[in-house]
Amino acid sequence: MLDIGFIGLGVMGRPMAAHVQRGGHRLFVHARRAPPAELTAAGAVACTSPHEVAERAQTIILMLPNTPDVQSVIFGPTGLEHALKPGKLLIDMSSISPGATRELARRVTALGAEYLDAPVSGGETGAKAGTLTIMVGGPETSFARARPLFELMGKNITLIGDHGAGQTAKVANQIIVALTIAAVSEALVFASKAGVDPAKVRAALLGGFASSRILEVHGERMLKRQFSPGFRIALHRKDLGLALEGANELGVALPQTAQCQQLFNAMMAADEGGLDHSALVRAYERLAAHALA
Amino acid sequence: MLDIGFIGLGVMGRPMAAHVQRGGHRLFVHARRAPPAELTAAGAVACTSPHEVAERAQTIILMLPNTPDVQSVIFGPTGLEHALKPGKLLIDMSSISPGATRELARRVTALGAEYLDAPVSGGETGAKAGTLTIMVGGPETSFARARPLFELMGKNITLIGDHGAGQTAKVANQIIVALTIAAVSEALVFASKAGVDPAKVRAALLGGFASSRILEVHGERMLKRQFSPGFRIALHRKDLGLALEGANELGVALPQTAQCQQLFNAMMAADEGGLDHSALVRAYERLAAHALA
Repeated sequence: MLDIGFIGLGVMGRPMAAHVQRGGHRLFVHARRAPPAELTAAGAVACTSPHEVAERAQTIILMLPNTPDVQSVIFGPTGLEHALKPGKLLIDMSSISPGATRELARRVTALGAEYLDAPVSGGETGAKAGTLTIMVGGPETSFARARPLFELMGKNITLIGDHGAGQTAKVANQIIVALTIAAVSEALVFASKAGVDPAKVRAALLGGFASSRILEVHGERMLKRQFSPGFRIALHRKDLGLALEGANELGVALPQTAQCQQLFNAMMAADEGGLDHSALVRAYERLAAHALA
Repeated sequence: MLDIGFIGLGVMGRPMAAHVQRGGHRLFVHARRAPPAELTAAGAVACTSPHEVAERAQTIILMLPNTPDVQSVIFGPTGLEHALKPGKLLIDMSSISPGATRELARRVTALGAEYLDAPVSGGETGAKAGTLTIMVGGPETSFARARPLFELMGKNITLIGDHGAGQTAKVANQIIVALTIAAVSEALVFASKAGVDPAKVRAALLGGFASSRILEVHGERMLKRQFSPGFRIALHRKDLGLALEGANELGVALPQTAQCQQLFNAMMAADEGGLDHSALVRAYERLAAHALA
């Protein structure tokens, strides 16, 4: 049994923390509001600050919305910083900037602690089922230390490379997922406006080179109009923002990603940022003045 | 044993015709050059014109490069036209314009013959293995008549809808395939320029929502620099041309497809239209001044 800190108990963090707890570990949690009763009832200790979490736990897991949240929880007032001594391991499972992650890792390791970036994909469903894909950046020794915890939360666990590599892989993942949703949207709206049943097109295409998890899962959501999240447009837009910010820093052209981001912007303009990302098809439907179903 | 006409004995048509022949049918073929010896040695009858093919065969299959070729073989001098009497079935397995197909079907059925559009996906590999995906448009009775022939050439055979629906599904397929190749290219070039091993990113992403046949097959081709076709950029550019032409006719906006076509144009400009479509990653590599491998 280890003492594990967990900060960020939202839609994703809560079931992930519960898996760690059910794995036999003692949780030390901090949340802006009261921590979930399901965790405290099972023995999780509520701490008054991130600093207290890092004082009492050996390994601290973060699952926060965005880059500034992670920076502030580590280096802000009452942050983890002054408790990050040798022996402590900080695992950031949030999806944040790869560039900022390299800088955070540099500062945390300078304090003597270990750092891993370990963002996930698989959404709320994967978090609840403990089947997340976990993409890790950092030293092999830290990865080996964290692996038993990762195995409580996920199935497909890969050490991608050095600090920041996990976040870079996650950005790559989000690029592919967004652009594949756009691809399926363009194809199905095209077929439907041509008078062809998009459900039959989807079924025929699933056997060949056009097949993907997105055509399977999100294509079906588009046809059945199941747009309750799932993974929200607003969050995917944040992730494409990380891609485009990284593209600026690195000198990489991402024309399809940039254009897709404009369509996400159109979804925000239509006040549909809270819908599942498969609802991107609605932006195309409006452009074509034609609904799939 | 049926008498089957086959016109268009190129990279795709030749193995498809051979499967029909091995299925026990007698072939009547016409080609601008001498027909393949493998077919004539096995009993295929070389005809001097498309018209003669349609005179002698009950069912005529076309597998031609583009819309004007199909129009000319049917309605040009020495074309099929005057032999297309009741009882004849014309199956166009080429990938051509859905709009032009509806007009061709109207004219052919006005002559009393039956018409099916039945484009395929799966490429040369699928044609040789007899595992093509076949997307069919036309009446159910004609589909039922053609099905035993389709089963000699393909595995995943779907009646999508009325005349033109097969071609529309094929265009939808080509949209998704092209845009997924672009998606994988952007993601892998982004990761690689960030200093992360793109092979590890691809492997990690194959387990999750970013997974697709394209990430699996074409992603590997990108990493191994296996750009011999496969399916040529120049042909995929023709197919996206059909998509964009259809978008103009129908009033549908395909922004990602339009932008991807510009990248295919860049490949043509670099004299790389003869490479496999996975080589689209090279356009991105040039934009980023950075090669994956």
